[in-house]
Amino acid sequence: MRIAFIIYNGMTALDFIGVYDSVVRLKTMNFIKDLHWDVCSTFRKVTDSTGLSLGPTKVVDSLRGYDMVIVPGGPGSRNLIDDTEFLKWLKTARGCRFKVSVCTGSLLLGAAGFLNGRKATTHPLAQNELKKYCDFIVNQRIVDDGDLITAGGVTSAIDLGLYLCEKLAGKEAMEKIRQRMDYQH
Amino acid sequence: MRIAFIIYNGMTALDFIGVYDSVVRLKTMNFIKDLHWDVCSTFRKVTDSTGLSLGPTKVVDSLRGYDMVIVPGGPGSRNLIDDTEFLKWLKTARGCRFKVSVCTGSLLLGAAGFLNGRKATTHPLAQNELKKYCDFIVNQRIVDDGDLITAGGVTSAIDLGLYLCEKLAGKEAMEKIRQRMDYQH
Repeated sequence: MRIAFIIYNGMTALDFIGVYDSVVRLKTMNFIKDLHWDVCSTFRKVTDSTGLSLGPTKVVDSLRGYDMVIVPGGPGSRNLIDDTEFLKWLKTARGCRFKVSVCTGSLLLGAAGFLNGRKATTHPLAQNELKKYCDFIVNQRIVDDGDLITAGGVTSAIDLGLYLCEKLAGKEAMEKIRQRMDYQH
Repeated sequence: MRIAFIIYNGMTALDFIGVYDSVVRLKTMNFIKDLHWDVCSTFRKVTDSTGLSLGPTKVVDSLRGYDMVIVPGGPGSRNLIDDTEFLKWLKTARGCRFKVSVCTGSLLLGAAGFLNGRKATTHPLAQNELKKYCDFIVNQRIVDDGDLITAGGVTSAIDLGLYLCEKLAGKEAMEKIRQRMDYQH
């Protein structure tokens, strides 16, 4: 299982870290021994929407070969929906088994053409923007449409992470991770 | 209002980002115009417990002059409780109006001597370790003991952040921030 966590300038850090924390515990708590992840960007250094700098572990040309690609949201997503270079890069995830987003990350999946005729969600305030790319916007915290899994606003990243843990390693693993994270949902 | 978010090697990124996200919205959503924050470290580059690199916005010699210092937890806290250089640095926060921690960050506040005779909490699995430094361990998600505010494990960072938002800017501001974060507690 190879996972690419995408990071980009102007993103919301919690969209990324919220899902990252639980998913990497699948490895650190020994539920999936061959889990491998990269924090991927097209740049060597990324700054979130508030000026916080985050370092990618890998600057990659292509997302081919990952089983799962996870795209966070944030104000910077609005710059990237018209950035042909970025979208060309994101489109290399087409063959990945799971394309996943948090918050306005779904706008990027949409702009890459992944949401045509599909069901998805986004931040409650971004549903109108998503209509441009997605035919069926569902008002749920997590929308699982097979190879496409999208989540609501910022903190839904945590619920999404636990959802992915259960999907990849079962309910018992998810429950132990949830307890370790002291999450009380 | 000047806030120092402490970061260090081996920390848990979500402990930091969970409280950071809401607190910086006090500024970005215009509730506290003169809010200033630094992401502070003794090093130029910090790597969390999973290999993720985070950049401090400021490498500082002293924490004097901040109104609030916020310390995350993580496996790396166990190295720092015996690190006299680090503790000397953390002790410069003594005069700060609020000393705040998430998860095992309370072990660091304790090792710096801030918890003598005080009430505090920590990650549920770290309560025994905290006994060394703290006389009254309270099994609550957030423990407010005046100038000392401590929170439970990892995801309690989000609840703590919203708690601080309400404390600093009132319930209405907190509620608007909570909605923007799409947090459903």
